[in-house]
Amino acid sequence: MPLYQYDHQIRVRYQETDQMGVVYHANYFSYFEMARTEALRSLGKSYRDLEESGCFLVVNKAECSFKKPAKYDDLITVRTLVERITHVKIEHKYEVYRGEELLAVGKTVLVAVDRDGRIIRIPQELVP
Amino acid sequence: MPLYQYDHQIRVRYQETDQMGVVYHANYFSYFEMARTEALRSLGKSYRDLEESGCFLVVNKAECSFKKPAKYDDLITVRTLVERITHVKIEHKYEVYRGEELLAVGKTVLVAVDRDGRIIRIPQELVP
Amino acid sequence: MPLYQYDHQIRVRYQETDQMGVVYHANYFSYFEMARTEALRSLGKSYRDLEESGCFLVVNKAECSFKKPAKYDDLITVRTLVERITHVKIEHKYEVYRGEELLAVGKTVLVAVDRDGRIIRIPQELVP
Amino acid sequence: MPLYQYDHQIRVRYQETDQMGVVYHANYFSYFEMARTEALRSLGKSYRDLEESGCFLVVNKAECSFKKPAKYDDLITVRTLVERITHVKIEHKYEVYRGEELLAVGKTVLVAVDRDGRIIRIPQELVP
Repeated sequence: MPLYQYDHQIRVRYQETDQMGVVYHANYFSYFEMARTEALRSLGKSYRDLEESGCFLVVNKAECSFKKPAKYDDLITVRTLVERITHVKIEHKYEVYRGEELLAVGKTVLVAVDRDGRIIRIPQELVP
Repeated sequence: MPLYQYDHQIRVRYQETDQMGVVYHANYFSYFEMARTEALRSLGKSYRDLEESGCFLVVNKAECSFKKPAKYDDLITVRTLVERITHVKIEHKYEVYRGEELLAVGKTVLVAVDRDGRIIRIPQELVP
Repeated sequence: MPLYQYDHQIRVRYQETDQMGVVYHANYFSYFEMARTEALRSLGKSYRDLEESGCFLVVNKAECSFKKPAKYDDLITVRTLVERITHVKIEHKYEVYRGEELLAVGKTVLVAVDRDGRIIRIPQELVP
Repeated sequence: MPLYQYDHQIRVRYQETDQMGVVYHANYFSYFEMARTEALRSLGKSYRDLEESGCFLVVNKAECSFKKPAKYDDLITVRTLVERITHVKIEHKYEVYRGEELLAVGKTVLVAVDRDGRIIRIPQELVP
């Protein structure tokens, strides 16, 4: 069971499509980042404030399995599942849906760094 | 041992950086795609022609481990390693370097589809 | 006086920032496109449907004056003003705000083309 | 007559196309920025160094007229023409070609700012 989960809706942009007529695959990783930021906001926290306080979450590992293509103007739902938080990393899982249809499944591992890029502990406040 | 390998150089663009002052992580997946296209070109084949002949290579799975950040104006080398080609998929590995420094390691699985999005056999001509 | 105007809100994405810590300027042109699409939707019309019917609106000219930078996580408002519609083109103006602050002002000229890229009349249904 | 002109070649990326099968218009502004950076490099100067010395060139105004679409894998030439440099701004013109074919014409006005975003004089070293 995830520690927390949150659904965020995204309208697919024209620029995100490519000449195959579908969303270019790299854009899903950007969708994931927006979705986890909104998941954080839904808990009353702001990633922007976190950065301003000197803590940066950087992606250490990212992966995605693409099942079906998202298309221009689709209103997709990105479900963010907080899978695990330790002192050194946060693991998220993502599911991208168009209605009931599962389009993609992804995962990221985040670590925290300070302004100088040195790895620091994951802030306690990020535990849901 | 890879079936084939090829090094492609990319100049990091200003637009690819984000406010952390490094390349936004999703851009590496686009780097991988360009690098494997150039690997193909180095074998005298053109992905553009392949598409015009009705065969589209789509990304089925993609992953990346980020070791060190690439920065604006860096001249990075993306090494593409063709790991495995079967009737149904092509597996690539990627290594991103700045000089001797390893910045990232990635992997993709591609499948081939026709104009209607139906899965087809990997064309024989793609075997190096 | 504009023929029609509509305000659309956009949350600035991390990927849209660059190492100056502000939104990379080219992204405003994408904001304009999203804003005019939403203006159309607010009139009960869909650009996606328009394309499916064989009419494509292409940008013939675009310009932007940048006053103040938008930043990560800003909730900006893009005001679209439909300035003029003739048989051959549509002229839009755009104003980008963060609260009361004017960040940028832009303009586009659109023409309509068919599936083969030939210029066609602006569809009557696009007149608000 | 321009103060200086320089031709830079760019290979159109898959990600830069959209579902119309051509380069998404906003990308031309990024092409312009790369081309003027390479024009600077051809004069033995580096925009990266300029930023590290505390001088940032920001786009104050940008415009583009789109004549014909660039397509995936096209090798386009972006000609940068330095039109005018004063104490407060630099004006560039751009011409985008595919072979002999003119695809787009653009213009930008740049101003210089310091680390705090305050407008400063255009550095003398930028005059070709």
